[in-house]
Amino acid sequence: MLKTDYLSQLRQRNPLIHNITNIVVANYVANGLLALGASPIMSSAVEEMDELPAICQALVINIGTLTAEQVKAMLIAGKAANRHGIPVVLDPVGVGATCFRQQTVAQLLQEIQFSAIRGNAGEMAYLANVNWQTKGVDVGQGDADLDHVAKKIAQQYRCTAVISGAIDVISDGKQLAHIQNGTPLFPHITGSGCLLSAVCGAFLAVAQQHDFPALVEAATAYAIAGELAAKNLQPQQVGQFYTALLDKLATLDSTQVQQLARIDDD
Amino acid sequence: MLKTDYLSQLRQRNPLIHNITNIVVANYVANGLLALGASPIMSSAVEEMDELPAICQALVINIGTLTAEQVKAMLIAGKAANRHGIPVVLDPVGVGATCFRQQTVAQLLQEIQFSAIRGNAGEMAYLANVNWQTKGVDVGQGDADLDHVAKKIAQQYRCTAVISGAIDVISDGKQLAHIQNGTPLFPHITGSGCLLSAVCGAFLAVAQQHDFPALVEAATAYAIAGELAAKNLQPQQVGQFYTALLDKLATLDSTQVQQLARIDDD
Amino acid sequence: MLKTDYLSQLRQRNPLIHNITNIVVANYVANGLLALGASPIMSSAVEEMDELPAICQALVINIGTLTAEQVKAMLIAGKAANRHGIPVVLDPVGVGATCFRQQTVAQLLQEIQFSAIRGNAGEMAYLANVNWQTKGVDVGQGDADLDHVAKKIAQQYRCTAVISGAIDVISDGKQLAHIQNGTPLFPHITGSGCLLSAVCGAFLAVAQQHDFPALVEAATAYAIAGELAAKNLQPQQVGQFYTALLDKLATLDSTQVQQLARIDDD
Repeated sequence: MLKTDYLSQLRQRNPLIHNITNIVVANYVANGLLALGASPIMSSAVEEMDELPAICQALVINIGTLTAEQVKAMLIAGKAANRHGIPVVLDPVGVGATCFRQQTVAQLLQEIQFSAIRGNAGEMAYLANVNWQTKGVDVGQGDADLDHVAKKIAQQYRCTAVISGAIDVISDGKQLAHIQNGTPLFPHITGSGCLLSAVCGAFLAVAQQHDFPALVEAATAYAIAGELAAKNLQPQQVGQFYTALLDKLATLDSTQVQQLARIDDD
Repeated sequence: MLKTDYLSQLRQRNPLIHNITNIVVANYVANGLLALGASPIMSSAVEEMDELPAICQALVINIGTLTAEQVKAMLIAGKAANRHGIPVVLDPVGVGATCFRQQTVAQLLQEIQFSAIRGNAGEMAYLANVNWQTKGVDVGQGDADLDHVAKKIAQQYRCTAVISGAIDVISDGKQLAHIQNGTPLFPHITGSGCLLSAVCGAFLAVAQQHDFPALVEAATAYAIAGELAAKNLQPQQVGQFYTALLDKLATLDSTQVQQLARIDDD
Repeated sequence: MLKTDYLSQLRQRNPLIHNITNIVVANYVANGLLALGASPIMSSAVEEMDELPAICQALVINIGTLTAEQVKAMLIAGKAANRHGIPVVLDPVGVGATCFRQQTVAQLLQEIQFSAIRGNAGEMAYLANVNWQTKGVDVGQGDADLDHVAKKIAQQYRCTAVISGAIDVISDGKQLAHIQNGTPLFPHITGSGCLLSAVCGAFLAVAQQHDFPALVEAATAYAIAGELAAKNLQPQQVGQFYTALLDKLATLDSTQVQQLARIDDD
């Protein structure tokens, strides 16, 4: 059961979310945040990384199309965000795929305190150092206990871990929640995970450090928006789903989220 | 009342528009220009900035996701465009937000002669040095007299200023026009302002230096396309609006624009 | 007549396709590959160019928004792909437009062995050194014999040449195929050619070096998806076409492709 209503606060406060993100999803993430009721600013310029956290309410770091220059920007922005006390979300896109991604994420995790890490099972299994067969930026497959993975990451990096998938698994190291909502269409569009990470940032921006319940609501609300968007679609109408998800993020209200939420608390 | 018909000329001549733009809107701007009847070329490579203005009919410079390298490209392309006598449009996205953007725009305005500057009220108030509370790349709020802002920018930079918003304000320093057309959906999609800047470039490309009437028509035509796109949509169907705007830019004709135009001339 | 069925193999094997591509189409290409049944990974980071070909089944190089840094990445990735024996596709976007593009493509063609080159008539005429009036990244016009162009490129670069247009012309230097399928809507959306290049990569990934028939099927399947997507649309509903093409790439099946194919073999 979901008792929080950060969504209404988000719509009211319209937080400004700084995204250091990839060229594939920048547009969709910006549109998704706008639809939800937040304000996106997308920038990776080292020259303004120290300044933006001062005017933003959350920072989302996404390594999807990393460059050496962008890594510098991430480090400056992450540290500035920590200094200003705004939440920082990490999306370790395809972290297992290459040394460059592995090393970058290791450095980010060492130098920046994240409030949340959001990834798919493959990415999160990599971070938790458990066995999983990844495939590029896709989820891959494995037999890891995702509850264990989420708890381990949360404890190791003192954050909330959000593993998205058919069932989302969320843990702050002690508490654990499983979100049953969603649609099989999510992995068939690019950036559905990246947008969820940004949505996590928008909810954290108004959560006043109640990170775990805010992230449970964020993932639930997002999964329900997907569920509603997929409602009248065939399983392969991916183009229409891409569009419909934005519409549903814009119309979603708290009552809907609370009524449709299917969450197993631990 | 609108007496010009640059739209038909644009469709007939199919001008090539060089865009130095940001990673968020590059796709939408390209699709919007194609829909309207222009040809987009998106490039920020310093290596080709001197050459492209020679084969293009307008240049549009957008600072949305600026990098130091891109600033170099903007300066080379802007000067080449001036040399070749093709119109240059500036979109000072979020100019007030950081020193990097402020300094870059100051330098661009000093070294390049722009035909038009298109921004929202917050960005334009910053350029006119009047009081306004901006918010990242969003419009923010303030009590500035936008007629004054538009006139001041136009006079100071010897160009036409286009302030987009619920009512668009356009001035060449002497003349002033207010465009009542539009839809509240515009600010709910990312890049609607950026696309308008590119559309301004496309109209200027066929305007033979009648910049003010061409820009009044450009902003009116664009606002009407938005109006028509929003017609059968709910206020929150942002995903569908994003798609419908492209459709309407493609079907829009001069008769429609002339009949639906709601312009207050000064 | 089409006797092959690489499409089913593609869906079954879900090949991972590495794309070094431009900021305009990165999102659409990723969504298109996902819709078709392949997995995209988009990256231009020099740091991981040597590694990615080892885990991917094809590489697609697109010069749409080239930077000097990206050229380095292309060379490293292309050579690694050659070493690992995975197919490489070149999309020489707007190659005739600037010296930078011309020199880059010359260098890529010299240092990398491509399996396929896919371009529009203007780009391919430039590569074949025959007369054609190009216009930026658009096709332009000319009177070149496209059969001759395709054959010449295929022979010169020991690859299969795919010239897309109202009629697609494909040659491996000996064989020649003309694909009559398609829709006039294709050139009205940005990235329709870029996505075809990526689709060529996905088909080559499962073709086991039967490049020519695989590319004939790739271009035919793509053209038919466009045909079906345009079916209930007006010629100017470009926004809806953009969305519908993804839907059709996802639902397309081999029987449909074989039944609807209109191919003239030489």
